[in-house]
Amino acid sequence: MKGLKLSLKTEQLTRTLVPIHNLMIGRDLALIAGPCSVENEHQTIETALRVKKAGANIFRGGAFKPRTSPYSFQGLGLSGLKILSKAREETGLPIVTEILDPRDTYWVAEYADILQIGARNIQNFPLLKEAGKCGKPILLKRGMQTTLAEWLYSAEYILSEGNPHVILCERGSRTFQTFCRNTLDLSIVAAVKEISHLPVIVDPSHGTGRPDLIPPMCLAAIAAGADGIMVEVHYNPDEAICDKDQALLPDTFGEIALRSVALRAFLTSDDYQSGSSL
Amino acid sequence: MKGLKLSLKTEQLTRTLVPIHNLMIGRDLALIAGPCSVENEHQTIETALRVKKAGANIFRGGAFKPRTSPYSFQGLGLSGLKILSKAREETGLPIVTEILDPRDTYWVAEYADILQIGARNIQNFPLLKEAGKCGKPILLKRGMQTTLAEWLYSAEYILSEGNPHVILCERGSRTFQTFCRNTLDLSIVAAVKEISHLPVIVDPSHGTGRPDLIPPMCLAAIAAGADGIMVEVHYNPDEAICDKDQALLPDTFGEIALRSVALRAFLTSDDYQSGSSL
Amino acid sequence: MKGLKLSLKTEQLTRTLVPIHNLMIGRDLALIAGPCSVENEHQTIETALRVKKAGANIFRGGAFKPRTSPYSFQGLGLSGLKILSKAREETGLPIVTEILDPRDTYWVAEYADILQIGARNIQNFPLLKEAGKCGKPILLKRGMQTTLAEWLYSAEYILSEGNPHVILCERGSRTFQTFCRNTLDLSIVAAVKEISHLPVIVDPSHGTGRPDLIPPMCLAAIAAGADGIMVEVHYNPDEAICDKDQALLPDTFGEIALRSVALRAFLTSDDYQSGSSL
Amino acid sequence: MKGLKLSLKTEQLTRTLVPIHNLMIGRDLALIAGPCSVENEHQTIETALRVKKAGANIFRGGAFKPRTSPYSFQGLGLSGLKILSKAREETGLPIVTEILDPRDTYWVAEYADILQIGARNIQNFPLLKEAGKCGKPILLKRGMQTTLAEWLYSAEYILSEGNPHVILCERGSRTFQTFCRNTLDLSIVAAVKEISHLPVIVDPSHGTGRPDLIPPMCLAAIAAGADGIMVEVHYNPDEAICDKDQALLPDTFGEIALRSVALRAFLTSDDYQSGSSL
Repeated sequence: MKGLKLSLKTEQLTRTLVPIHNLMIGRDLALIAGPCSVENEHQTIETALRVKKAGANIFRGGAFKPRTSPYSFQGLGLSGLKILSKAREETGLPIVTEILDPRDTYWVAEYADILQIGARNIQNFPLLKEAGKCGKPILLKRGMQTTLAEWLYSAEYILSEGNPHVILCERGSRTFQTFCRNTLDLSIVAAVKEISHLPVIVDPSHGTGRPDLIPPMCLAAIAAGADGIMVEVHYNPDEAICDKDQALLPDTFGEIALRSVALRAFLTSDDYQSGSSL
Repeated sequence: MKGLKLSLKTEQLTRTLVPIHNLMIGRDLALIAGPCSVENEHQTIETALRVKKAGANIFRGGAFKPRTSPYSFQGLGLSGLKILSKAREETGLPIVTEILDPRDTYWVAEYADILQIGARNIQNFPLLKEAGKCGKPILLKRGMQTTLAEWLYSAEYILSEGNPHVILCERGSRTFQTFCRNTLDLSIVAAVKEISHLPVIVDPSHGTGRPDLIPPMCLAAIAAGADGIMVEVHYNPDEAICDKDQALLPDTFGEIALRSVALRAFLTSDDYQSGSSL
Repeated sequence: MKGLKLSLKTEQLTRTLVPIHNLMIGRDLALIAGPCSVENEHQTIETALRVKKAGANIFRGGAFKPRTSPYSFQGLGLSGLKILSKAREETGLPIVTEILDPRDTYWVAEYADILQIGARNIQNFPLLKEAGKCGKPILLKRGMQTTLAEWLYSAEYILSEGNPHVILCERGSRTFQTFCRNTLDLSIVAAVKEISHLPVIVDPSHGTGRPDLIPPMCLAAIAAGADGIMVEVHYNPDEAICDKDQALLPDTFGEIALRSVALRAFLTSDDYQSGSSL
Repeated sequence: MKGLKLSLKTEQLTRTLVPIHNLMIGRDLALIAGPCSVENEHQTIETALRVKKAGANIFRGGAFKPRTSPYSFQGLGLSGLKILSKAREETGLPIVTEILDPRDTYWVAEYADILQIGARNIQNFPLLKEAGKCGKPILLKRGMQTTLAEWLYSAEYILSEGNPHVILCERGSRTFQTFCRNTLDLSIVAAVKEISHLPVIVDPSHGTGRPDLIPPMCLAAIAAGADGIMVEVHYNPDEAICDKDQALLPDTFGEIALRSVALRAFLTSDDYQSGSSL
């Protein structure tokens, strides 16, 4: 990893804080929730209101969906972005949404507070370069089979274009195992915290694909040092167009949020850190 | 997993507790530490005394070593077992040690408190059957590329021979990634807790192979629901014959043990469980 | 794979032939050779002349290079395309070159005879859609961890935009193994020939990353049913900017080409097919 | 691989020939066929007679079956070995059968001509050591996730006990892909031929798990340099107790055998080797 110039910790830079509205990601725990896709205004606003109430501090929702099949729902595009803006107005929550196409970066940045680059685009270099120029923080998901070095090099594509605000996101790797959708790799979270100044969060929804495993994996992520979690939540999962099997109800997310905040507070308390009370 | 008869939770059996001296694994947090190999009496006793002081409640050490090369150190065998017995006398700690050969099971069981079946033997069925007859608890490590169903079926080989005392141990899978020795899979810990009554612990030493990642991964394992941790500790890692790069000093283990106990207490407290104080 | 509409064999369409100059890929064996990158005019023309003489019928060379690090050589871009055009003029060989950015598709198509979509872009859907509109045949490499269904769905993104000329290319998967750069998967070649009408070729240069294994893997690919091979060749591998360790000399490629043609002729002979002489 | 002492080519030893009756494996193409399991005398003898007629020169059949579940059919054991002996009497074909337990090696060697060590036992070191002492050739299958170095080191466990007759067998790795049961890795066959003097064969039945892919993968294996193939054949696959979905009919094996022999003859002909007629 000798070739990494901007993503490794230095004496001067041990921690990047990414400002999103009144949050500082890297210091404040990111609790990102929302549906896989923006399906319509009602579904989006309703879910946004409920995840806000449940403790979320950032709202997620996809307007451009990367779908394996060209015949699957591809997202609402601009209409979806407008619905997301409305959700922000209604809830005050900042919005993160995915971009797929380098041609869309500059104008989608007008609607979103954070642009997400998804797992399939981890080495889409033109998209990474545009992300480096868009003026908004970037949530950079690790790919399905990305090494630590490759992940940080992809971050460097963004950083080296002048955008210092990269948030890494682990979302599971594709492996031989079959009981989960992916194999969530929390060691890489600890490794990122060890060598890089960039914040890193965890998406256990894609990381496991199993609702029953999302709550314990959120807690494990925080114990591993993650700066936040991103969870798929739908006000009515049975109606979800994508990923309905892994969407949680807002109430379940509420319990996760409460426990995550309490766990983070415990782990970062002076007593725990100093070991004095242990 | 319809064919599993004995390892899944039932209404009658939701949690197996495995008694080891005065511990009940599955209820009491297992803190297993010790060297990769029994190298000699001094190294073993010295390490045992120091991990005991640091908080370990079970001592590990290999007398039979599964080595990739026939020309590598294969372990001290019977002499190693005698040294382990002496370590137990000196410290009071129960002993876990690996068996490789079905012919050794019955007599090694005379020396050890728990017999370990290692990752390479996850589908060594004659060994599993003997383990089912040996009268001692079995620590059954997941293989490098074992599915959840395969792991539980291997446990069933032991259970169906009449030995109810199986402790599962996740130790990382071999994947494409390169920054760690293996990819530690904490989701499978949560999955085991969800569907099986068997206790499950985590070995982040083999799971990561990197000393800097072992402490956070111990905490993450506990947050994921693990019933204990197993860590390679050597009183002087630089001298270790095997796995010297991943062995921790006893003091480092002591910090892990303190934090693990405190974290477990926090997570299992009534306040946290009920959410009343969150 | 029920959702695939255009890439599976039907009674009407059992084999797509892709016309490239006077070749019909899918019937004529594709022998594609050339350097990883277009480095300069001399290197490119010299290599093109020599692979032509050695038996190549298509010339490859990268003008846009997908590089893990933003600080690595990114290719010559337009200048590279002009050099490739000159190589075509000098040798008469059609040109295949990689595209990375959907914004480049239409104008790069002016310079190239086949556009390549590389492994990292297997699910870059905007790029696939543009490839469907560009009017040139597309060489669609399988990604590092792409299932058969995903590969064919990515082909459908191109086909469903009206471009019937998709050539699939297996180039190895990333797995746990370490002796090769990737694990070349020839079974998927046979599987594609079984279920799809699209031609499929094999790139053992990336597939193995080891010069000694490229010749036998070319023959194995043809025996598995591949419609061609793509091999990295440089007139002076020691000087190559990228992938110098896997580039072959033109003479080595010449031997591969001779043997590949002879093997294909043997396997497709009436005697062999009918079994009469066996 | 510096530690390998006995399995690498040397100036003195470039090719080990393993004598089995009147065959010399490593020079004569091994055509091994037979059922997954010995189920009963009729099934075994009938299949043996038919694979003999179809061109097989070695008969395979399992008397000890490594099964994921303890509740699955575990093989007929000694009765199965007696049936295999009878099949040898009836057909004159040498017998290869799997051993699982180091305690069985010496007496199973009385019944079999070749002992097979299966994928799950690739690092069952006590079994490998016994195999080194049993006086019969050993067919050593690569494990589901075994590196080239590990495979050769496991061979060294046998060789270093004084048994020079090791035949390697590639049977596919477990990877992320799902269309085949495993990912058959023919590059490792070419790599073995490059660096080791040991013969290596290929099992495309377990390697693919799909009958339609077995014939092309047999040819691809031979083109990659394999010294033989091993194929699961049952006189009536629908009745097979294990692996019925991947068993071929004797007639299909007959076509494979014919084509394999013809392909091998073509590839090893003086004309092809010298390139004079190409």
